[in-house]
Amino acid sequence: MDGPALHPDIAPLGFLLGSWMGEGKGFYATISPFEYGEELRVWHVGKPLLAFTQRTWSLDDGRPLHSETGFWRLIDGSHVELVVAHPNGHAEVAEGELRGTSISVASISMTKTSTAKPVDSIERDIRVDGETMSYDLRMAAMGRPLDGHLQAELRLGATH
Amino acid sequence: MDGPALHPDIAPLGFLLGSWMGEGKGFYATISPFEYGEELRVWHVGKPLLAFTQRTWSLDDGRPLHSETGFWRLIDGSHVELVVAHPNGHAEVAEGELRGTSISVASISMTKTSTAKPVDSIERDIRVDGETMSYDLRMAAMGRPLDGHLQAELRLGATH
Repeated sequence: MDGPALHPDIAPLGFLLGSWMGEGKGFYATISPFEYGEELRVWHVGKPLLAFTQRTWSLDDGRPLHSETGFWRLIDGSHVELVVAHPNGHAEVAEGELRGTSISVASISMTKTSTAKPVDSIERDIRVDGETMSYDLRMAAMGRPLDGHLQAELRLGATH
Repeated sequence: MDGPALHPDIAPLGFLLGSWMGEGKGFYATISPFEYGEELRVWHVGKPLLAFTQRTWSLDDGRPLHSETGFWRLIDGSHVELVVAHPNGHAEVAEGELRGTSISVASISMTKTSTAKPVDSIERDIRVDGETMSYDLRMAAMGRPLDGHLQAELRLGATH
């Protein structure tokens, strides 16, 4: 659909916009490795931020696994801020840097509802090369140190 | 669209599901009162939680104002947990109680990115009566005590 123009303050993150689909692998000391499909949608409404929603499903049987939703912010052209709501009761606030079409952010706070499992920190590296997005996510959870958790590659579908 | 059945653990919150539209009023000691239009979508994917995304716009000129996105969780049939990502850099984790089709939650943590304005707490009362949803939101921000901030009434449109 036609919409408002991309706000110039968020334009350097414009390479994230669109609908992305692909597959990834999950692993962590406390779980069995798994493979997942993923759909990510990133959009804007003319304000200096990007909204996103994401969902994953098991490649075994298609059952829904995770989903995330939140906002990307960009300050002074290179300082990235990320706010994420997680369905398992976590809220993630992360900050980091944009370099070209690569983003690295680390959580500055992880908060949670009283029934959620403890997650201490999350780090995300995201790289976009043309119509391919790849990301690595590291996590410190359940009292364990920061370690690899997710790795995926997505392809750009629709750009709106 | 046809989708998975509503998970029985979240069914008591099923009255939130659907697309809601309406209007509201905003006010706070630090701002001029304003009127807004609102669209709220609440859905599920078969897991014991509800996802939502919301946006508001000025009734003056239609410009986008706020948006929120996150998840509702329900524990033991009556304990409600809410995780919200805000575009202005805040993450809200709130808990409270479900009574019939009324929900009252208060933030147990408000976290934010380094450039976001301080918000200390948020309280939400939501009531659904048939196809009408009304809510009140109170906020403590910018060093001020908890006070009324938003009041709106929405009507149920599509139920999926």
